[in-house]
Amino acid sequence: MHKFIYCFSFFLGTFFQSIAEDGYRLWLRYDLVNNPDLLIQYREQIQSMLILGENASMEAVKNELQLGLKGLLGKDIPSGLLTDNHLLLVGTYGPNTILSERLTPNETENLGDEGFSILTKEIDGKKIISITALHDTGVLYGVFHFLRLLQTQQDIENLNIQSIPKIKVRILNHWDNLDRTVERGYAGFSIWNWHQLPEFIDQRYIDYARANASIGINASVLTNVNANALILRPDYLEKVKALADVFRPYGIKVYLTARFSAPIELGKMETADPLSEDVQSWWNEKVKEIYEFIPDFGGFVVKANSEGQPGPQNYGRTHADGANMLAEAVAPYGGFIMWRAFVYSNEDPDDRHKQANNEFVPLDGKFKSNVLIQVKNGAIDFQPREPFHPLFGALEKTPVMMEFQITQEYLGQGTHLVYLGPLFKEVLDSDTYMEGRESTVGEIIDGSITGQSITAMAGVANIGSDRNWTSHPFGQANWYVFGRLAWDYDLSAEAIAAEWVKQTFGNDPGMGQVVESIMLDSREAVVNYMTPLGLHHIMGAGHHYGPGPWVSKMSRAEWTSTYYHRADSLGVGFDRTSTGTDAINQYHRQIARTFESINHCPEKYLLWFHHVPWHQPLASGNTLWNEICLHYQKGVDQVAGFVDRWQNIQDSIDEQRYHHVLSLLTIQLKEARWWRDACLAYFQTFSQLPFPEGVEAPLNELKYYESLQYPYAPGIRPKW
Amino acid sequence: MHKFIYCFSFFLGTFFQSIAEDGYRLWLRYDLVNNPDLLIQYREQIQSMLILGENASMEAVKNELQLGLKGLLGKDIPSGLLTDNHLLLVGTYGPNTILSERLTPNETENLGDEGFSILTKEIDGKKIISITALHDTGVLYGVFHFLRLLQTQQDIENLNIQSIPKIKVRILNHWDNLDRTVERGYAGFSIWNWHQLPEFIDQRYIDYARANASIGINASVLTNVNANALILRPDYLEKVKALADVFRPYGIKVYLTARFSAPIELGKMETADPLSEDVQSWWNEKVKEIYEFIPDFGGFVVKANSEGQPGPQNYGRTHADGANMLAEAVAPYGGFIMWRAFVYSNEDPDDRHKQANNEFVPLDGKFKSNVLIQVKNGAIDFQPREPFHPLFGALEKTPVMMEFQITQEYLGQGTHLVYLGPLFKEVLDSDTYMEGRESTVGEIIDGSITGQSITAMAGVANIGSDRNWTSHPFGQANWYVFGRLAWDYDLSAEAIAAEWVKQTFGNDPGMGQVVESIMLDSREAVVNYMTPLGLHHIMGAGHHYGPGPWVSKMSRAEWTSTYYHRADSLGVGFDRTSTGTDAINQYHRQIARTFESINHCPEKYLLWFHHVPWHQPLASGNTLWNEICLHYQKGVDQVAGFVDRWQNIQDSIDEQRYHHVLSLLTIQLKEARWWRDACLAYFQTFSQLPFPEGVEAPLNELKYYESLQYPYAPGIRPKW
Repeated sequence: MHKFIYCFSFFLGTFFQSIAEDGYRLWLRYDLVNNPDLLIQYREQIQSMLILGENASMEAVKNELQLGLKGLLGKDIPSGLLTDNHLLLVGTYGPNTILSERLTPNETENLGDEGFSILTKEIDGKKIISITALHDTGVLYGVFHFLRLLQTQQDIENLNIQSIPKIKVRILNHWDNLDRTVERGYAGFSIWNWHQLPEFIDQRYIDYARANASIGINASVLTNVNANALILRPDYLEKVKALADVFRPYGIKVYLTARFSAPIELGKMETADPLSEDVQSWWNEKVKEIYEFIPDFGGFVVKANSEGQPGPQNYGRTHADGANMLAEAVAPYGGFIMWRAFVYSNEDPDDRHKQANNEFVPLDGKFKSNVLIQVKNGAIDFQPREPFHPLFGALEKTPVMMEFQITQEYLGQGTHLVYLGPLFKEVLDSDTYMEGRESTVGEIIDGSITGQSITAMAGVANIGSDRNWTSHPFGQANWYVFGRLAWDYDLSAEAIAAEWVKQTFGNDPGMGQVVESIMLDSREAVVNYMTPLGLHHIMGAGHHYGPGPWVSKMSRAEWTSTYYHRADSLGVGFDRTSTGTDAINQYHRQIARTFESINHCPEKYLLWFHHVPWHQPLASGNTLWNEICLHYQKGVDQVAGFVDRWQNIQDSIDEQRYHHVLSLLTIQLKEARWWRDACLAYFQTFSQLPFPEGVEAPLNELKYYESLQYPYAPGIRPKW
Repeated sequence: MHKFIYCFSFFLGTFFQSIAEDGYRLWLRYDLVNNPDLLIQYREQIQSMLILGENASMEAVKNELQLGLKGLLGKDIPSGLLTDNHLLLVGTYGPNTILSERLTPNETENLGDEGFSILTKEIDGKKIISITALHDTGVLYGVFHFLRLLQTQQDIENLNIQSIPKIKVRILNHWDNLDRTVERGYAGFSIWNWHQLPEFIDQRYIDYARANASIGINASVLTNVNANALILRPDYLEKVKALADVFRPYGIKVYLTARFSAPIELGKMETADPLSEDVQSWWNEKVKEIYEFIPDFGGFVVKANSEGQPGPQNYGRTHADGANMLAEAVAPYGGFIMWRAFVYSNEDPDDRHKQANNEFVPLDGKFKSNVLIQVKNGAIDFQPREPFHPLFGALEKTPVMMEFQITQEYLGQGTHLVYLGPLFKEVLDSDTYMEGRESTVGEIIDGSITGQSITAMAGVANIGSDRNWTSHPFGQANWYVFGRLAWDYDLSAEAIAAEWVKQTFGNDPGMGQVVESIMLDSREAVVNYMTPLGLHHIMGAGHHYGPGPWVSKMSRAEWTSTYYHRADSLGVGFDRTSTGTDAINQYHRQIARTFESINHCPEKYLLWFHHVPWHQPLASGNTLWNEICLHYQKGVDQVAGFVDRWQNIQDSIDEQRYHHVLSLLTIQLKEARWWRDACLAYFQTFSQLPFPEGVEAPLNELKYYESLQYPYAPGIRPKW
């Protein structure tokens, strides 16, 4: 096959000889270790394997080790005996098991359900490396970790690793529709081929499970939060079961989105009132049916009374009433309800920023114990930069979970190189002051502050049917960093970038340095060329593709751009201080105090919380207007720099991915300029000020940018 | 990569070691010749190559030969000298060229624009094989033909091949929308990634061009006949240009569909009246613009005044007025207009079968010389079996072209194994009696009867974003057979199946025999389990997925099933004889005479032309009712037989494709039973007769089948 994929590439005028690098293998490439000395060492250190246990998960372990070691070491590792020297010993620990002859209880006792330990030991002069856990899935995680050590060329001479996930449910949310379109999907279409399930099991389903397990993701919501009741129909449940059966050996539980009105649409009932006994028993029956298909079904994610979705408020009930009804239905089976806090209403005149807290803080303590409130990282909607959501730290008696967006709806979608590690970390490390200092968002969602027993982190997936899964080859890094941070949010964005690059592009340090530097600068670059200094939600309406600061006429004010930037002849920005909407007082007073003052508010959030005069001097000494212009220009310059840096490492990157990334960087540069030109042309109509030195003037007049129409930009949900 | 794709396949419980066979390579696999003696021979017969000419097409030739020979012979063939023994000599012939030292003019003079010659010659004791043509594209076709000889393990000792295409324009019609959905597409979504064009050139575009060139396809309509004016916007034309640039070296011209109302939608004009000078000059300007982007642009395909599409009749003009306006616009550049005859109106009370002839026969002779009338193979719509369209043979002064449907809209869509070779041949070999006997449809569209100078055959593509291009691995055979028949419709369906199987699955004769037998039986099987004895258009409404003989309430009568089968207590079938709609008199009188008589009408068309009593005895001696039942049962039994036959050759098929096809055959068998059960349960309510012996009774009651809903069956166009 590689011959065919790597047939001469006409647009390059070259003829590829090497193995195809089309990105399908993600970070699990397992190519031969290219450092000869290290290869010799590894072969010496791993001479045989003994894999204990006979079940589907251990089958997965075995196959992954065979696949990985054969690739990395370039030879089959024979299965060995407990007494072998340089044995790789893999299995679950238990008293009176073979493993207990080599390990002591205290080496495993604290690993919990999913933790693992990797140890190098010398016993009777025999060296062994053990990968062990208390449960199969932990062993699988340990094996993937061990293979990562080899792929990133780490020293394995004296391993003593214990790793336990900080968050219990590490879950992908697929906004995939049953017609295979993906809302906010930019990598083709849904990988779920519902029409051909359950009979046809695509190899992709298996490789999807492997990739997720390799970074610790243990749950997946298969369907869009804008839900379709049809997924609960028996013939669809059979299809869901087929996927659950593929994922189970990899420790991945399947969740679905529940359309609140399903009792009406499927059950032909008059109402979906959560307090109606008929409705309750309809859900109880439906849940019973689901668990007959999928005994380890995870539960439901629910978007209710938000953006037109039905919910309990349609019947004068609260979110708690709605969530608890479903929670009772799944409780007997150990299921969870993830109830989204992303609610805002156009009837509510209050600042959209405040509405989630207004809804949920009064309900704190009213939810069943198997309900989690799923909170987006910020109060608006997955912007390039947002202050953390004020619900983190505001709920004391209710489990809260994080919802990040891996798919880049507002960050360049499928064509911009933006590494989200720094964004995720910025949020997780934010101090909520819930208990004085040191109450970071991370410490809240992992339960260490409130003691909540169920913990979860969700990521809205960027996975699609494109051959390389994520359209942009660097989109893979955002899937990767989400999984790694969900496992351990104390890892740094830098470290995760480095390990991803090594596994994805190889261990050449010069190349690695350049690629990592591009990744680590990329998030600040997109903030600069899209929404600097706290500007937000000024994208094109609907598809959110490209700039649209002029968007002002829509059915709902809070869908327009002018609602958020409030530009006028005096200045720009949204006054959320006490003189404005007072949203800042939803934060802890210590934070509120900082944000309240135009002088102490961090400049990165300035226009998020303040309406600032154009002539206001900022820390740099420049006026606001000049700083805005300089930030837009800087964003463009940064992308131009990415292009140069990428071209400098052409020799260290395989030809197919080199040219793919280069063509996407070309698009990104074009679109960064588009953003700068459109936004500056627009805001200048208010500031009436000239562009400072070093800032290129827009290529076209404002009306040109306003006239651009993209009805088929990807990621919009078609109506059938 | 193969390691990853071929990671253990959980649902099989096995671990693949071999190279991936995911179908991406189509019939261009170029695997090492597995017959050792033959391999030695080939290596002896091809010891060096000399490829003459320096341009993009010859670059493609060179790369294809390197790729193919390296794969098939397992070694690089060095470039050689004219004086070498066992030289492969490749290039365009011309007087005083190097080639003219080895070839004589008469060996090439009649090859025309696209023909090629492959000769084995001995000159001065040196053996050479020459692949030559008068133009580069002919050489490319010759090279693909030569590689096919090797892939199918033919003797190349004494080659003397001249091949010239019978049809000039061999064109794929992609019903692809700008949102990447594909109307009647069952292989994922559109391969055209409009959003990332022109910057990102997907390797697929190149491999698409290679695959088409390898079977002689030389044109492609990129957009849906239900057209969107946006494709004519400059930014989209730049994207089209990028594709045209990729296809050009492979001899493939790009066509687009023209939305007749584009002057209103794009040009902001009041009218699209073809007689308006403003409209004419708008089209002239637009065409000029297109040719500036794409100097060899092929022309437009137009669906006008059909199924709601705008057209000249909106302004009281004729199809000729509309077609001629566009024809004049493209004429200066050598472009064509392919004007579809697929028109029918719900205002017209006449039999839909007759409406195309009613519209177009009166216009015969009124069209500009660069207009072709594009006629579907049958008068209704791509049914499993239709009599040939009566327009073939009815137009004398107007070029007519064939429109086949490769995508299986009415033949099991993406999941049924149905080889369309026999269907295409049945139509092409049908005698129209236009000039007494021997005026086959093929002879009409190739111009030998009417002398029409432009000739074309279109196929509605079954290509999508699925990794294997066509969803069903055997869908590839339908793409293949279309191309081969468009080149030479005298080839047999059997021969083409055999050569496709060898290239796709290998040269094992036992395996080949079985696979070919399944393919050759498959079309009759689908007729049996869907629409035996001339039944037609009784599929589910809208998506055309599954049986829907009960469909009776729709906005248009001719979209219902009851319109076509007319079942009642007396019998079933559509009386199109002189006592009925008299549609048969649109055929030549000799055909009409046969069809008119219930005793002489071929049984395969019986219910197409006659309303037949349930008790009517047929040739077999069985009553009509019993024959209908037995045909449905036979169709199911045939598919069950395919499953058995396929399982018998498991050892001869690679694991991935074996299991993929098996899972699809499982779906096909399930759905064949569904068709039988639903149709028999339905028709029995009219016949009130018992099922004959050997026919299984339906599993469920009719109301169950009527209740089934598939809102997300693939291939329906979503509305954005």
